[in-house]
Amino acid sequence: MEKLVIAYSGGLDTSYCAKYLSQEEGFEVHAVSVNTGGFSKAEIDEIEEKALALGATSYTSIDAVSTFYNKVVKYLIFGNVLRNNTYPLSVSAERIVQAIEIVNHAKKIGAKYIAHGSTGAGNDQVRFDMIFQILAPEIQIITPIRDKKLAREEEINYLQQNGIDYPWEKAKYSINRGLWGTSVGGDETLTSHLSLPESAYPSQLEKELPKELKLTFKNGELVALDGEQDSPVANIEKLSAIASKYAIGRDIHVGDTIIGIKGRVGFEAAAPLIIIKAHHLLEKHTLSKWQQYQKEQMGNFYGMLLHEGNYLDEVMRNIEAFLTDTQKHVSGDVFVTLHPYRFELNGISSKHDLMNASFGSYGEMNKGWTADEAKGFIKILSNSGKIANHVNQDS
Amino acid sequence: MEKLVIAYSGGLDTSYCAKYLSQEEGFEVHAVSVNTGGFSKAEIDEIEEKALALGATSYTSIDAVSTFYNKVVKYLIFGNVLRNNTYPLSVSAERIVQAIEIVNHAKKIGAKYIAHGSTGAGNDQVRFDMIFQILAPEIQIITPIRDKKLAREEEINYLQQNGIDYPWEKAKYSINRGLWGTSVGGDETLTSHLSLPESAYPSQLEKELPKELKLTFKNGELVALDGEQDSPVANIEKLSAIASKYAIGRDIHVGDTIIGIKGRVGFEAAAPLIIIKAHHLLEKHTLSKWQQYQKEQMGNFYGMLLHEGNYLDEVMRNIEAFLTDTQKHVSGDVFVTLHPYRFELNGISSKHDLMNASFGSYGEMNKGWTADEAKGFIKILSNSGKIANHVNQDS
Amino acid sequence: MEKLVIAYSGGLDTSYCAKYLSQEEGFEVHAVSVNTGGFSKAEIDEIEEKALALGATSYTSIDAVSTFYNKVVKYLIFGNVLRNNTYPLSVSAERIVQAIEIVNHAKKIGAKYIAHGSTGAGNDQVRFDMIFQILAPEIQIITPIRDKKLAREEEINYLQQNGIDYPWEKAKYSINRGLWGTSVGGDETLTSHLSLPESAYPSQLEKELPKELKLTFKNGELVALDGEQDSPVANIEKLSAIASKYAIGRDIHVGDTIIGIKGRVGFEAAAPLIIIKAHHLLEKHTLSKWQQYQKEQMGNFYGMLLHEGNYLDEVMRNIEAFLTDTQKHVSGDVFVTLHPYRFELNGISSKHDLMNASFGSYGEMNKGWTADEAKGFIKILSNSGKIANHVNQDS
Amino acid sequence: MEKLVIAYSGGLDTSYCAKYLSQEEGFEVHAVSVNTGGFSKAEIDEIEEKALALGATSYTSIDAVSTFYNKVVKYLIFGNVLRNNTYPLSVSAERIVQAIEIVNHAKKIGAKYIAHGSTGAGNDQVRFDMIFQILAPEIQIITPIRDKKLAREEEINYLQQNGIDYPWEKAKYSINRGLWGTSVGGDETLTSHLSLPESAYPSQLEKELPKELKLTFKNGELVALDGEQDSPVANIEKLSAIASKYAIGRDIHVGDTIIGIKGRVGFEAAAPLIIIKAHHLLEKHTLSKWQQYQKEQMGNFYGMLLHEGNYLDEVMRNIEAFLTDTQKHVSGDVFVTLHPYRFELNGISSKHDLMNASFGSYGEMNKGWTADEAKGFIKILSNSGKIANHVNQDS
Repeated sequence: MEKLVIAYSGGLDTSYCAKYLSQEEGFEVHAVSVNTGGFSKAEIDEIEEKALALGATSYTSIDAVSTFYNKVVKYLIFGNVLRNNTYPLSVSAERIVQAIEIVNHAKKIGAKYIAHGSTGAGNDQVRFDMIFQILAPEIQIITPIRDKKLAREEEINYLQQNGIDYPWEKAKYSINRGLWGTSVGGDETLTSHLSLPESAYPSQLEKELPKELKLTFKNGELVALDGEQDSPVANIEKLSAIASKYAIGRDIHVGDTIIGIKGRVGFEAAAPLIIIKAHHLLEKHTLSKWQQYQKEQMGNFYGMLLHEGNYLDEVMRNIEAFLTDTQKHVSGDVFVTLHPYRFELNGISSKHDLMNASFGSYGEMNKGWTADEAKGFIKILSNSGKIANHVNQDS
Repeated sequence: MEKLVIAYSGGLDTSYCAKYLSQEEGFEVHAVSVNTGGFSKAEIDEIEEKALALGATSYTSIDAVSTFYNKVVKYLIFGNVLRNNTYPLSVSAERIVQAIEIVNHAKKIGAKYIAHGSTGAGNDQVRFDMIFQILAPEIQIITPIRDKKLAREEEINYLQQNGIDYPWEKAKYSINRGLWGTSVGGDETLTSHLSLPESAYPSQLEKELPKELKLTFKNGELVALDGEQDSPVANIEKLSAIASKYAIGRDIHVGDTIIGIKGRVGFEAAAPLIIIKAHHLLEKHTLSKWQQYQKEQMGNFYGMLLHEGNYLDEVMRNIEAFLTDTQKHVSGDVFVTLHPYRFELNGISSKHDLMNASFGSYGEMNKGWTADEAKGFIKILSNSGKIANHVNQDS
Repeated sequence: MEKLVIAYSGGLDTSYCAKYLSQEEGFEVHAVSVNTGGFSKAEIDEIEEKALALGATSYTSIDAVSTFYNKVVKYLIFGNVLRNNTYPLSVSAERIVQAIEIVNHAKKIGAKYIAHGSTGAGNDQVRFDMIFQILAPEIQIITPIRDKKLAREEEINYLQQNGIDYPWEKAKYSINRGLWGTSVGGDETLTSHLSLPESAYPSQLEKELPKELKLTFKNGELVALDGEQDSPVANIEKLSAIASKYAIGRDIHVGDTIIGIKGRVGFEAAAPLIIIKAHHLLEKHTLSKWQQYQKEQMGNFYGMLLHEGNYLDEVMRNIEAFLTDTQKHVSGDVFVTLHPYRFELNGISSKHDLMNASFGSYGEMNKGWTADEAKGFIKILSNSGKIANHVNQDS
Repeated sequence: MEKLVIAYSGGLDTSYCAKYLSQEEGFEVHAVSVNTGGFSKAEIDEIEEKALALGATSYTSIDAVSTFYNKVVKYLIFGNVLRNNTYPLSVSAERIVQAIEIVNHAKKIGAKYIAHGSTGAGNDQVRFDMIFQILAPEIQIITPIRDKKLAREEEINYLQQNGIDYPWEKAKYSINRGLWGTSVGGDETLTSHLSLPESAYPSQLEKELPKELKLTFKNGELVALDGEQDSPVANIEKLSAIASKYAIGRDIHVGDTIIGIKGRVGFEAAAPLIIIKAHHLLEKHTLSKWQQYQKEQMGNFYGMLLHEGNYLDEVMRNIEAFLTDTQKHVSGDVFVTLHPYRFELNGISSKHDLMNASFGSYGEMNKGWTADEAKGFIKILSNSGKIANHVNQDS
């Protein structure tokens, strides 16, 4: 029997695939789920149980939360990356790391086939296939859902006929949970004019009273929350637990898919939004004007390529080197207040704060320079405009 | 007597200048205030009265609200310009238009001198001086506040000794009001870690119940509010009146001044924030990926140069031509809900919506292409990565 | 019989297609060649004769030289576009215009099919197909060469068996001639290390003595050569005739194809190189620093999208509006000297020259500003660096 | 006596300064010259002799050629930096390193003053002053030439009256020689329309016969010439000696000075031009499309800031990290042929060549993908354009 690795989530589509590929196509199916922050221990146990019941020869749960953080999330923070100024790229970013882990697993166990459950109409197929083809061109990709365009009922029927009778409840919304946010798609997101109802979001408002928080960054990484040091991953998780009770970080992303159509997806991403905005504020105090300018351009570009599955392009490593280098002095505390549905950035404290220097204060005359020096500065700054206006004034 | 035009605001600094320049320096002082949206009729009358009392030969109030919109604000909307992703450039943008109006007035009345009340430590001196020097290099700039570094008390004393005894109350915060927002500086904004108290903001929360609004754009301009057509300027003013009761659009901008130091300034800008975000959402539905990408880069750059007083650089006209051209299809309705301190964008409706096409929906298989076509697409998209990985895998 | 329009060049591949599609597939074949500058009247007559002999129902020669200039070449000059700093995009640019003309012709005569002779391994198939699909999704594209992967001999045999016995000499190099340059591919260009021999280039060195030329631009367009006014297209053709005798403008372009592999192609493009470099020099004298900076970024991007067949993306129109606006003052004379294999730019003369202003000369003290003003300028320019160095010196 | 360090070149201006500052102003003058590649041992000896004769207490020659290469030149090669697509930034780049060495020397010997001989009308004053002020704000800058605006004759008279009677021949052209090229200013460069005569260039054509060369790069650095390994600095010097006999690399740079006026300067830079173009060609074969795209943008920006004396801005270090990271696979041989006044790049050979892969060749059908896959690729690539054209066709 030929070994096949399937990216298995426990959902209907991949369950269908697992059963179909083992039973009808005769593969030795090895189910793998890659946890990038969305699964609890209990959920993983349930996924395992399902996988084996469906005929999988083995099930492996790969814990890739740290890998996800170190390979991707870290740079999304360094670059303040919000796709289209809105979306922290929650799902896009996870898929990349999941694909890499899966292809590595397939190589390790000598599988010649990888299966995944994506349709032919979204971004995920591109992200998965590209990573697989680039890192393992010798491995063949199998995608029954994309190829057969089965209706939901057909899948359920097939499984039932084969003795698999899980309650495949059709959720109104398709939810994807991970370290860097949760996406929520369906119904209203298929229109252009409707927003998601409150109930569509997994987290609900539980807290009303404002809460102050201190986020401590070191070289751009979140190293402490309210003074308590922990790993960045743990801090993201803690912040997420706190802030999601305020229903913070909800929005709808309208974006261009890799396949050229526009798509809309809701998300809640309390921790990512707070961290990126807090980090960005710290940078405004600690980076030069040109660092901020180039970071913005590079961050946007990085987010675009990541979103489009181009993570393996060498330019991404180059930009990561750039972003890492910009974080040398991005250290200090950021003071945040959480409110229902929103948060405020109150300010920062950093020994690298370029504003607290004794050189002078904005708007107040100081010992740094004289009025004449300021006038000289402006006069020479006007030179090019003065010349252009003179030369071209009659034209 | 030599004619001198003074940019007159009615405040202590420019009042001192007006008196000092007419009485001590013997100028024929012509006071001018340029209204870019911040002054009511009553305020203008009061400014006039003061100016004449201080010895001004003439006072002129120039209504530049439409000019301000047409020369600057329009492009800030087209470009979704928020400096450092935060600040709608409220004050920066006004100064440019004020300077141009003043220099035109000076030329008209044949003045050889222009005075303004800026200090030597801020951005405004640069914005004023640059415009004056470029458009009228023959006119001399007079800046007593910058040159003499007078303390507040010295100015008051001088005025009192000369019979001018207005109650120059020292406001805790320095407020600048205009069509495109109100800046609030002082006290907390001089630190890095404190935010402004609620009371510092001119507008206070008056409404609690959510309110739905429909913003209608035509070629990127706000042509109607809740279906009622009016000029973009009137619509901005109306929206401002409605939304400021929700205390929306408050934040603190941390920025790099033109003179190289960092500065912090609070602002409230309910209408600008809502309009820019609504406009941006409409663009996500109506523009191509590359249009959005280039607009973001160009918009950032435009904002930077405007902020730094480089409005007259020809590149600004070129970018305006670019931005204008991008707005051909940016027409439609945007649905917004106002809440206390925040707003939500619910969605859009536009006949140019690229998402509502019958070509296919994100995530759902459709008639637009087959699974094999999608696979071919991804395969060839992977070519460059596949080659690079193959060639460099051992290195 | 179903009407089919074929993009017909008179070469072996499209001749095979014409015959095959009319005889075997039963189409009513309408042959079209689009002249973007490469064909003489005699060549067109010969193409017509061949087309009809092959069974085409009609033959149409579309003169698109002016269209090509106005839609594309003009902007390549405005943007100083050289792909990878080398290649004037000769062929890439032509294909776009040819495709548009062909699809328009097909619509005009009501054809439901368009055929072209591209293989499946190059850029041209992408450029053609994309334009066709976007402008006429209802028309079906037929590509026998791509589909059947025929060897050259098979095509010749088929034609001979069907009584078509032209001498299909296998040229060592594949040559593509047009208004904006001639590409030369084959043999050495398939390697990475060899350059083309002199004999591979269509134009040969005929002149040895240096020749001075004056190029006159008006708003960025070449309106006169040595003082003789003519249309830009005529001037390009004249300059080409003169300069190609000096064997100027030869090089090899190494580029990334749309399909992700690298390709190498030789070219000779005497007029394009001279015009772009002369135009660029004129801009250095007449544009501001920031205009040049943004033009470079936009020009590169424009060239990339054009090369990749994305001409119809709206962002291209937006960039064209930008580029056009930058040319307001790009008027004047550029003095060039031609030498064998190279040319020199001697200088320019323009009433918009920003260097000839009376404000001061580079390196010489002048009346424009004082030493103290220069010192004030530099002092304040140093502020941000001074603060950063002070704040971070110990870290 | 107060210690003063003077940036001393042996020319008239700095000789005047040295004498004047020691004799009239009573400074203890320490003369320093920083060799960034332009001085021979004999010239340095002569400079020393002069310095001491002028009353300098000490003279120090700092050999900064390697420093210059490692701090600046290396990145100019990595970034293929040619200012305005023309100028390798020869002089701009040297000044930075010279200023850093001088300020370090001043700190070492405890000097409280630094003098230099720049005028108030050029870029060099900005580059020097900025570096001095940022790295040593406590040191005072003394610039007699800028302050006193002396005529040449006045300087000579003063020196003669004080017993210094060197033959200060007024060269027709001002020449600045360094590792990365030689600038030539004067006479024709003060106009916009004249080029420099051949005789103005220090190197003259001595060789007529074409010469083939092999440049070997390792991680972007020139590690061997014709197979002979040596340090990059030595290789640049060797290449310079060979190529300058072909009168290669001459041109005139038209640029925007930091003080806002346009300037024109001739240069000869045979080795820099050949190295940059060869390096760039190697990159076209070894880097991805997006690496090249971002490198071009970053390289241009890096060159602009370097030119403007902003070397110490942290963004420069960040870009250097980016550029260094891009060079991982930029290794291999580049084949060049030198001709009088020009050179040809024949091709490259590299184990990282992305073109030599067995995946397929440009323009030839291959085993990499099928016609159907290519069609699927193009079809989906057309999606966004197809939708946009459909939605907006009537508008």
